[in-house]
Amino acid sequence: MSAVNEMADDALAARHRARMLRKKQVVDGKIAAATEDRGVLLVNTGNGKGKSSSAFGMVARALGHDMKVGVVQFIKGAMGTGEERFFRGLPLQDRLQWHVMGEGYTWETQDRPRDIEKAQAAWGVAQRLLADESIGLVVLDELNIALKHRYLDVQDVVRVLLSRPLMQHAVVTGRAAPPELIEAADTVSEIAVLKHAFQSGIRAQKGVEL
Amino acid sequence: MSAVNEMADDALAARHRARMLRKKQVVDGKIAAATEDRGVLLVNTGNGKGKSSSAFGMVARALGHDMKVGVVQFIKGAMGTGEERFFRGLPLQDRLQWHVMGEGYTWETQDRPRDIEKAQAAWGVAQRLLADESIGLVVLDELNIALKHRYLDVQDVVRVLLSRPLMQHAVVTGRAAPPELIEAADTVSEIAVLKHAFQSGIRAQKGVEL
Repeated sequence: MSAVNEMADDALAARHRARMLRKKQVVDGKIAAATEDRGVLLVNTGNGKGKSSSAFGMVARALGHDMKVGVVQFIKGAMGTGEERFFRGLPLQDRLQWHVMGEGYTWETQDRPRDIEKAQAAWGVAQRLLADESIGLVVLDELNIALKHRYLDVQDVVRVLLSRPLMQHAVVTGRAAPPELIEAADTVSEIAVLKHAFQSGIRAQKGVEL
Repeated sequence: MSAVNEMADDALAARHRARMLRKKQVVDGKIAAATEDRGVLLVNTGNGKGKSSSAFGMVARALGHDMKVGVVQFIKGAMGTGEERFFRGLPLQDRLQWHVMGEGYTWETQDRPRDIEKAQAAWGVAQRLLADESIGLVVLDELNIALKHRYLDVQDVVRVLLSRPLMQHAVVTGRAAPPELIEAADTVSEIAVLKHAFQSGIRAQKGVEL
């Protein structure tokens, strides 16, 4: 390496070090300011891929911390069959409750009274989980769809979510989260789709969508 | 229920049925048009929460379909410790390779030459996974950060990703995905943070961030 290049590299490394040190100070300051410990209400919404997958990644995370986890799927088939098969096959069934309550997407059924009945039954199970302080994480998969179609009352749902045990985390997924729920949540992620394989003619694949 | 209300309910149900039937036709048409089967390259980017969690939800999904999975973490500590503990504790180690290669965020280390060395070592492991057609899903967690800081050459990374086995899925996570990678990907999700518990003074919680 020439002496000139070596100097340039040294200068680059020094600039990098200074920039990263400033960044570390900012990050450390923010971390020091966050001191409260309590359960978090998360909402994963938007049209992109990953709302449910992200919630199921959190299930893995919570189980890895020896927590108890409850899952309610408001729409059967909304997530892949792989997760259900995987999680239900684990030797952890004493710590994991998995309830599949819905029956297909609403545009598959075209039967509003039946959809309302199913959504209310699922919400009944959800309420039981949201009242059980031994459960560290509750996943309400595709609850937003039930709220969007007004199968459930959003005020009632928000009231129950906010009354859950102090240290319990809850994750609500589904596109079109209602404003009342976003207002009540601690953390809201909106997933946008910039591109989708489906648009190039690739059908749903095992391990990705299924 | 009064007769008036009953009529209103019937009309509502009929409208719902017609709307959902039209939606079903659109969805069914799109499904019929997507006929190709092949591995998908996904990118989870943006500033929001859930990029890595979503990839780990896909790990669960793929394992649930009896696939083999390889994970390379380019930045140690970028994801929670819960997932690693969970997945490494599973009785599935013959089907799951989990490589933690990086050493903390770059603003923690402030040492560019060492970061480059670590990123290149991680990329070496990734290349081996991306050449192994027995592996159905490869997760490259926080690879985008290594690309952003130019620890790796993006052209080289894209070339290797596009040369992987036909049926293999690959997921790349991390904020600030480079345009070359987005161009090469089949599916790109951008996760925006609308709200974060951290901003209200709640620190990182087990089962959520950790």
